[in-house]
Amino acid sequence: MGMVGGGKDAFIGAVHRMAANLDGHIQLVCGAFSSNEQKSKESGQSLYLPGNRVYGTYAEMFTREKLLPEGERMDFVSIVTPNHLHFEPAKMALEHGFHVVLDKPMTLSLAEAKLLKQVLGGSGKLFCLTHTYTGYPMVKEAKEIIRQNKLGAIKKIYVSYPQGWLSTFLEESGQKQAAWRTDPARSGIAGSMGDIGVHAFNLAEYISGLQVTKLCADINITVPGRQLDDDGTVLLKFNNGASGMLYATQVAAGEENNIRIQIYCEKGGLEWQQQDANTLLVKWLDKPAEIYRAGSDYLSPLAKFNCRTPAGHPEGYLEAFANLYRNFALTLMSKNNGTNPREEWTEYPGIAEGIRGMAFIENVIASGKSDNKWKDFEV
Amino acid sequence: MGMVGGGKDAFIGAVHRMAANLDGHIQLVCGAFSSNEQKSKESGQSLYLPGNRVYGTYAEMFTREKLLPEGERMDFVSIVTPNHLHFEPAKMALEHGFHVVLDKPMTLSLAEAKLLKQVLGGSGKLFCLTHTYTGYPMVKEAKEIIRQNKLGAIKKIYVSYPQGWLSTFLEESGQKQAAWRTDPARSGIAGSMGDIGVHAFNLAEYISGLQVTKLCADINITVPGRQLDDDGTVLLKFNNGASGMLYATQVAAGEENNIRIQIYCEKGGLEWQQQDANTLLVKWLDKPAEIYRAGSDYLSPLAKFNCRTPAGHPEGYLEAFANLYRNFALTLMSKNNGTNPREEWTEYPGIAEGIRGMAFIENVIASGKSDNKWKDFEV
Amino acid sequence: MGMVGGGKDAFIGAVHRMAANLDGHIQLVCGAFSSNEQKSKESGQSLYLPGNRVYGTYAEMFTREKLLPEGERMDFVSIVTPNHLHFEPAKMALEHGFHVVLDKPMTLSLAEAKLLKQVLGGSGKLFCLTHTYTGYPMVKEAKEIIRQNKLGAIKKIYVSYPQGWLSTFLEESGQKQAAWRTDPARSGIAGSMGDIGVHAFNLAEYISGLQVTKLCADINITVPGRQLDDDGTVLLKFNNGASGMLYATQVAAGEENNIRIQIYCEKGGLEWQQQDANTLLVKWLDKPAEIYRAGSDYLSPLAKFNCRTPAGHPEGYLEAFANLYRNFALTLMSKNNGTNPREEWTEYPGIAEGIRGMAFIENVIASGKSDNKWKDFEV
Amino acid sequence: MGMVGGGKDAFIGAVHRMAANLDGHIQLVCGAFSSNEQKSKESGQSLYLPGNRVYGTYAEMFTREKLLPEGERMDFVSIVTPNHLHFEPAKMALEHGFHVVLDKPMTLSLAEAKLLKQVLGGSGKLFCLTHTYTGYPMVKEAKEIIRQNKLGAIKKIYVSYPQGWLSTFLEESGQKQAAWRTDPARSGIAGSMGDIGVHAFNLAEYISGLQVTKLCADINITVPGRQLDDDGTVLLKFNNGASGMLYATQVAAGEENNIRIQIYCEKGGLEWQQQDANTLLVKWLDKPAEIYRAGSDYLSPLAKFNCRTPAGHPEGYLEAFANLYRNFALTLMSKNNGTNPREEWTEYPGIAEGIRGMAFIENVIASGKSDNKWKDFEV
Repeated sequence: MGMVGGGKDAFIGAVHRMAANLDGHIQLVCGAFSSNEQKSKESGQSLYLPGNRVYGTYAEMFTREKLLPEGERMDFVSIVTPNHLHFEPAKMALEHGFHVVLDKPMTLSLAEAKLLKQVLGGSGKLFCLTHTYTGYPMVKEAKEIIRQNKLGAIKKIYVSYPQGWLSTFLEESGQKQAAWRTDPARSGIAGSMGDIGVHAFNLAEYISGLQVTKLCADINITVPGRQLDDDGTVLLKFNNGASGMLYATQVAAGEENNIRIQIYCEKGGLEWQQQDANTLLVKWLDKPAEIYRAGSDYLSPLAKFNCRTPAGHPEGYLEAFANLYRNFALTLMSKNNGTNPREEWTEYPGIAEGIRGMAFIENVIASGKSDNKWKDFEV
Repeated sequence: MGMVGGGKDAFIGAVHRMAANLDGHIQLVCGAFSSNEQKSKESGQSLYLPGNRVYGTYAEMFTREKLLPEGERMDFVSIVTPNHLHFEPAKMALEHGFHVVLDKPMTLSLAEAKLLKQVLGGSGKLFCLTHTYTGYPMVKEAKEIIRQNKLGAIKKIYVSYPQGWLSTFLEESGQKQAAWRTDPARSGIAGSMGDIGVHAFNLAEYISGLQVTKLCADINITVPGRQLDDDGTVLLKFNNGASGMLYATQVAAGEENNIRIQIYCEKGGLEWQQQDANTLLVKWLDKPAEIYRAGSDYLSPLAKFNCRTPAGHPEGYLEAFANLYRNFALTLMSKNNGTNPREEWTEYPGIAEGIRGMAFIENVIASGKSDNKWKDFEV
Repeated sequence: MGMVGGGKDAFIGAVHRMAANLDGHIQLVCGAFSSNEQKSKESGQSLYLPGNRVYGTYAEMFTREKLLPEGERMDFVSIVTPNHLHFEPAKMALEHGFHVVLDKPMTLSLAEAKLLKQVLGGSGKLFCLTHTYTGYPMVKEAKEIIRQNKLGAIKKIYVSYPQGWLSTFLEESGQKQAAWRTDPARSGIAGSMGDIGVHAFNLAEYISGLQVTKLCADINITVPGRQLDDDGTVLLKFNNGASGMLYATQVAAGEENNIRIQIYCEKGGLEWQQQDANTLLVKWLDKPAEIYRAGSDYLSPLAKFNCRTPAGHPEGYLEAFANLYRNFALTLMSKNNGTNPREEWTEYPGIAEGIRGMAFIENVIASGKSDNKWKDFEV
Repeated sequence: MGMVGGGKDAFIGAVHRMAANLDGHIQLVCGAFSSNEQKSKESGQSLYLPGNRVYGTYAEMFTREKLLPEGERMDFVSIVTPNHLHFEPAKMALEHGFHVVLDKPMTLSLAEAKLLKQVLGGSGKLFCLTHTYTGYPMVKEAKEIIRQNKLGAIKKIYVSYPQGWLSTFLEESGQKQAAWRTDPARSGIAGSMGDIGVHAFNLAEYISGLQVTKLCADINITVPGRQLDDDGTVLLKFNNGASGMLYATQVAAGEENNIRIQIYCEKGGLEWQQQDANTLLVKWLDKPAEIYRAGSDYLSPLAKFNCRTPAGHPEGYLEAFANLYRNFALTLMSKNNGTNPREEWTEYPGIAEGIRGMAFIENVIASGKSDNKWKDFEV
């Protein structure tokens, strides 16, 4: 694996590396960790990389790595830069013959997303979009319970994602994470909706197997001086007739990273929250609620495949993230070996989720500006 | 106390009686428990009432009780009938000189509510509307924390109220509670919004001290054949510029009676849920969240006045309900004695909350039918 | 009902009155609320009692009430004084023909307890000992699950009861509750073991249906100057071969009143804690744990009979306490009517539980002083 | 890193490898994964090791690796075999000049533990014992709160560790984990006490900074046919005069891996449970309890150093385990570089904890067989 971005004081780059390391299938072999060459070099050194595999630019990395013999050169690249630096390196990597892992949201705009889909389509390469929350085993169990129709038809989907870290005008202080995430040039047209709303949207569609068809959004900037939305609430309609609600906010002071989903069906409901990630509540109309727990023998094969430890040994965010990397790596090794990957290996988000995510961002921002109640979800 | 409604198989009548009994200030002395005279008699007998204080109609009760000597006749009436039988008995009681406790929603329509306000205005009588959830001590603590501005200005209010008991077409079976609550003739224009949405609305305005100014509602009937809404989600704007979201649903299969509120302010947030009623979470932007607990010495005087037991001895729904009755009774005794009631005694919902609640119902149903996004909250 | 003790600044007297009031079956008609006659009068007045039914001593009350016509005189007496004033008024009440409700622990010593049993045996009167925690519906559900052998044979019982209010030398300040509960003359040979340990012991035997046969205790006074134990941990052996552990402490600073029991059997386990009283966790060896909830339709008839509100409307400590009073009252009315009480009415603790409780206190204190590991549980 | 044990169907070997992988400081370079050479080879292959670095025996590994040039040969060995294969490979590794990471309990007996201490003492090598639970950041926060005396003197320590997986006679089925853990030849004199009791003991001494001085144990075999204890409860005395209780059981059917500790001091208390590992409750005598959360800015430097993700991104068992490896690796690299390690790097359990753990096992089993109440804790 090579890496684009993720220099020394980045947040998500280190997360990607730990996730890639965990299972021992992936080795970091090169990187262009920063647009600042000195910083890139220092980052590479602290990661025990040889100097000649640390590059000043991603373009250089793709060109030079391509010249290395197979088996030595990187197999795929992980791109962990801010949003405005997603499309170009991803496109270039694919064009140089490298598989791609890309952080969300997929691109700066839906138009870019569609272009990337075209590039990918012709490349024969693999592509993984790191919608982390779908990597949790209990999220997969939830998906399986819905898919097997144990609860009957879905009637309501509520998904909420409160954070509090942007409660103040943090970007003014120069804090790096706040700075780029509130900057239209680097984040795109959305702030909170692109940073976390898109995770909530993805989670709802992933578990339910449904698609949003219409939405009605209240989008707000609550901190004076801020350039992008830091808060939004969205009414939803789904393609089976169900309705729902999504909110994502970064100004819920005192909240950490509390993404939570509740789905209610004819016979019962599901509840999962990331801060208690190893538990899935299954509620029933006429009998006691059940506590499904990660690592348990009674789980579906899909959920169990994504557990590493027995019940009671909690797994968390990094393990969920690592599931994406592991599944991607297993699929990739299988492809390299000319064998068919097992079905559960291919269970990672990709280009389709990226397109829908970018469409969510554009539709939700458009709805926020509109006086009409419902906006069709256009892709 | 006399009672209108609350015959043998009613739900809320028994709750009112237990709430009135708890503190020993109130004695049930008469009732018109059912429009069926035989049933009313049987109900009275099972409540140890003498036969001559059990009446066939409320009109008869008001007339006959008025003739009894003061001290013997009932001081006030508690009206616990379905919505269509709120206005007339309340009006008649006031006109016969009786104070009134009335179940929510206050009337069948906003127009009736305004008429009742006129009648009450001229009567010099006391009036209590049983918005139970405001009787919880930790709800009062939340109100105090906001009022004292410990958390700074309010930015977001989320209130949700899921129940699951109307997930099926229960009214078809003749189940009494389902039958009247889904019947426009007895419930009014709203189902879930009038039954529980109005509680959520009241709780949000009560704790925050704010008023809703605009809303945007998605109102649904999810069970085929049902006549009134069983589900709704509402975007909210408040008079300080804050925004929020309210949902109330009776088709969240597997949920019991899970009203929950989260309020986020500049410096931190509050979270309270009725199913864990003795706990109030106070969250902070920059320090550990705190667990405020009912019965604790450190609570505000208002909260402590509404606790009966030391911390760790849980109080519940009946105690919250009893706080409304006790506060009403203490105010009434004070009035009867010609003394000024203590400020905390007058802390029970009344006509103003009733007017706003009925306005909520009418605005939210109108918004649900509109294609425009925002509807002004009109009273 | 008449009352002995429970004057104006007592804690448990007010609790008894609210519990007796709740269901409308019991009316407080007289009392000897304090050994201070003036205080007794004032207490009676604040409880709306006529002056001639408020007595200066319990002896006077029993004598005078006995002279009143049946139907007017009290049916039973509730004794809510400190421990040293349990035996004599209870005995005297029985001898004057009154049924008795008595606060725990039953007496000052096991010897007194055995005498009381003799008196009761010959009296034909009813007797209720207020082990409150057995009044909770989910405790009754736990008992039913064990009784029906759904979980197989019991292997382990853990019961813990931490409080923190005696963490400091509070009795020195003259705080009334601390003063008598740490005074051997008024409490007996045990402090924490008699005040709360006996509740934990009773709960374990009640739910399990087992009896302690041997124990090994570590009993401590942790606050310098204190005269009675404020802390103890006890190893237990039960008559089916199961083992267990009980701890009760009043110096767990920061704890409220956190009695909690876990029982593990061959196929699964139970967990209940009073601070989340409406929930019973049922855990299974090979399937998801279940959340049993008070007020639910699926509960056993015994549990349901002790619920007043539907699921999601929490009931608490006063309701549990009220269940003892209500069941006692229903049994008493049935006796007065010459009919057989329903089985679930007679479900309240009595003399047998009192004898075992006093034996627990004496055995546990003796074991605490012994260098031998196991002490037989002697009655 | 080289590995002894941890072949394909082992549990803890894979855990060690993931923990070692996570942070990118450690690379697995060789192993003797099984006493079955074929199995060792297959294991090595599946771990992407070259064939010549996969050995048939650990003796061979130590000999052959020692001949490799520095920088190529393994720096340290991780020993993850059953207990009877701890002492000899650890001793041999030290004698061949390799640092050692060793799974708990340290050895088969206290005598072996003391011998290992001697060997280590003369070797100049580093030694880490994987008491995983001390690697959790909130455990470290708890330790810091105690160390800084924020809560005053410790009065009570309760630690409990229920598991349920040995509720049945599982070893009879040949299940590998059950087989060796219940076999005296491979586990030593203790079953549950050595497998999990020693973790609970270590956790109590680690957080409190105290040492057990006396204990009184009830040790049981609850499953007929089983050879070693599967359950035990222990009364404890500590060297500051505090008392406590520890239980560890593997027959609590329905429990997973629920280690939990509560410490009560003069001014407040702490509560941590591994199944909710990112939360530490800090309770106070006179103010609201606080919820300390992993990843928060307000934590102590020691806790923060052991967090990888911001608050709300849960870390779990593997991250706690990885903290031991990372701290060991950082200390080792520092040693290799001839620099002084930072204080927080050296924060991993070692020989002293191993000696005390083995002493715990021997004392607790001896106490379980004794009729005397208290047994001095002898080392």
